[in-house]
Amino acid sequence: MRVALLGCGIVGSEVARLLVEQADDLTARVGEPLELVGIAVRRPDRRRDIPVDPALFTADAAGLAARQDIDIVIEVVGGVEPARGWLLAALRHGASVVTANKVLMAEDGAALHEAAAAAGVDLSYEAAVAGAIPIVRPLVDSLAGDRVTRVTGIVNGTTNYIMTRMTETGAGFGEALEEATDLGYAEADPTADVEGFDAAAKAAILASLAFHTRITAADVHREGITEVSSADVASARAMGHVVKLLAIAERSDVDGSVGVRVHPAMIPVTHPLAGVREAYNAVFVESAAAGQLMFYGRGAGGSPTASAVLGDLVATARNRRRGGRAPGAPAYADLRLRPMGETITRYHIDLDVADKAGVLAAVAQAFSAQDVSIATVRQEGHGDDASLVLVTHEATDAALQATVDVLRELDVVRAVSSVMRVEGG
Amino acid sequence: MRVALLGCGIVGSEVARLLVEQADDLTARVGEPLELVGIAVRRPDRRRDIPVDPALFTADAAGLAARQDIDIVIEVVGGVEPARGWLLAALRHGASVVTANKVLMAEDGAALHEAAAAAGVDLSYEAAVAGAIPIVRPLVDSLAGDRVTRVTGIVNGTTNYIMTRMTETGAGFGEALEEATDLGYAEADPTADVEGFDAAAKAAILASLAFHTRITAADVHREGITEVSSADVASARAMGHVVKLLAIAERSDVDGSVGVRVHPAMIPVTHPLAGVREAYNAVFVESAAAGQLMFYGRGAGGSPTASAVLGDLVATARNRRRGGRAPGAPAYADLRLRPMGETITRYHIDLDVADKAGVLAAVAQAFSAQDVSIATVRQEGHGDDASLVLVTHEATDAALQATVDVLRELDVVRAVSSVMRVEGG
Repeated sequence: MRVALLGCGIVGSEVARLLVEQADDLTARVGEPLELVGIAVRRPDRRRDIPVDPALFTADAAGLAARQDIDIVIEVVGGVEPARGWLLAALRHGASVVTANKVLMAEDGAALHEAAAAAGVDLSYEAAVAGAIPIVRPLVDSLAGDRVTRVTGIVNGTTNYIMTRMTETGAGFGEALEEATDLGYAEADPTADVEGFDAAAKAAILASLAFHTRITAADVHREGITEVSSADVASARAMGHVVKLLAIAERSDVDGSVGVRVHPAMIPVTHPLAGVREAYNAVFVESAAAGQLMFYGRGAGGSPTASAVLGDLVATARNRRRGGRAPGAPAYADLRLRPMGETITRYHIDLDVADKAGVLAAVAQAFSAQDVSIATVRQEGHGDDASLVLVTHEATDAALQATVDVLRELDVVRAVSSVMRVEGG
Repeated sequence: MRVALLGCGIVGSEVARLLVEQADDLTARVGEPLELVGIAVRRPDRRRDIPVDPALFTADAAGLAARQDIDIVIEVVGGVEPARGWLLAALRHGASVVTANKVLMAEDGAALHEAAAAAGVDLSYEAAVAGAIPIVRPLVDSLAGDRVTRVTGIVNGTTNYIMTRMTETGAGFGEALEEATDLGYAEADPTADVEGFDAAAKAAILASLAFHTRITAADVHREGITEVSSADVASARAMGHVVKLLAIAERSDVDGSVGVRVHPAMIPVTHPLAGVREAYNAVFVESAAAGQLMFYGRGAGGSPTASAVLGDLVATARNRRRGGRAPGAPAYADLRLRPMGETITRYHIDLDVADKAGVLAAVAQAFSAQDVSIATVRQEGHGDDASLVLVTHEATDAALQATVDVLRELDVVRAVSSVMRVEGG
């Protein structure tokens, strides 16, 4: 079984190392040896500390991917192009593909799935979502006889590290980000992580698999954590909640539409996701028959991601030997995508208010005008420190947003000091 | 695709119901309809509240399993015989098998795997371990490129419910068991659960898959929770731990041998398994590349178990359509089984001691005579209430047991009031 590796950075070098070090085990599991026949890198002459023949390195990724004698192409370069072109070429000549490329899968997974189906070969991407955590295969195979209703994930380790520090040490966002950067959890430009782009790509992949509908990153409502304040975190704590950046994909009971979103939210400390700390990831799945499931582990890093790549590689190699094929990602359900405004959620709102009669009445009127009902309200402080902390019942996001807009304009409200969705109730 | 169902109790009736209610989804996922052509039950004439043709019911399970026109046989009866005979007959005539039968798989999975391999068909049993939680497939496929070092599971819902109540309400074992029985979590005869037989069967299956070695329930060291006392639970709490019934399968770094055991143990409250409450199950997997993973969900019940059965059914049906085959459970590694005495663990020991000079010296001498070193020691109370609470460093279970035996004979020790292993450090 001849294998080509495109990319040899943090993940790729671990893949190459494991292919060599665990060769005997892999051979036993596949039934024949996996032979690494080429590694495409930008600088083939660079000295690398991995135990492979230096002659394997090439700068010609396109040429390697298109080689007719390759059975399986592993891609760990990332980004849409040129990876898409390489992988389409590989699939077209009958090679199976294993990729860790979440950006590509979230933007144009459909094209790759079609090319794989046309060639009758496997396309696998367990490593593209939540690193080492097996979640693609459970959704595709283990839950194939069930009806998934909701997937809620902590799928970005950088932001979860930051939220953990803000929760546990009281640090502000900037301070926690700095710490994450120092420890190597955040990149020099942390935009993809802290603005939720990375989580949105993963949410699109998870939603496509869970709901058998084509969903791309552009379909995902996205808010990052840069606006989350120490006050938000303290407010969450006061009601027994923690703040997490969540990726949520859910199917409406009412009309079967699907909504996919990434945003910070308060969840109860008793929720299984609340205990997911630091750079760990977890995906919480709710389904009609299985009930609640959670998958927990390392969401990034060379070794964990390489573990997922090698799992896919072994499964793919077994399928090629036996003539079988992984099930792909059928989009037969083709459910309607629900805009964010129609999403049903709850809001937690902190208001700085004037300490005078009639405040609560004015605020309550703003809610009822939008048909939003209030679940709890708590008045805190007096005089200049007077505040109202409200949690709503479920309502559409549009109605909740409209309520907040009205609140901002009320005379009795000095400031809307914190607004955050509440999930996992 | 013609499907036979053996057994129609709590799980079987859910399987039948889902096959009917989700027929359209299942057809889309498989690529052709799944037709339920027979259901074997003890009393075919009994009225059942499931939407299937009453003519499908038969008392002749052996005849149904052996029918040549059946593609897939689902078995949810349980027990070794007659299920084994039915399934071997089904495999021999080329039917694939999906079973939830942990007792059979733990006792004689090898015979079934051999028959499946000989016939070139699938044998799947995700539902046999931890109900709805996908754990068999992740071990077989997702971690196929990794090296699992340890599997630690809470795999019995009844005992986890009892331990949760003992921990959270201070109830004794008897009281908590009674509550579990009232709620339907424990059977009238709870022996299989509280004595650890159920967990041992699941441990054998997990260990076989994780370590590519044939391990049966008889190979598993087994201790139940009937001897766990409120004092043990309180001792655990005092050092920031909780008591759980754990199923542990681990591979030795030193000689590659495998040890498999089921026993109550103290684990830190910060361990991901510590938060698994009530009747939930979870399997915590440690591997060389992926690091720590956890799989969490419902370990029992009709719907959750049926979800796992249907996942296997869809995967099996897809494989039959495409000519592929699931990877089976290769036992190529054939690792040595390590006896319990060689297992490396830590002990937590509470001693009632005489309140006089020289007690600690005598106790310490008992430990050092067995080469067991003490990690922490705490003296509590005075006079008749004097006690010593000790936690050891790691040592072999044989040395730790020998130490406890010596302590029981010491003049200065009035009683060994609690002995429990400590895991997850």
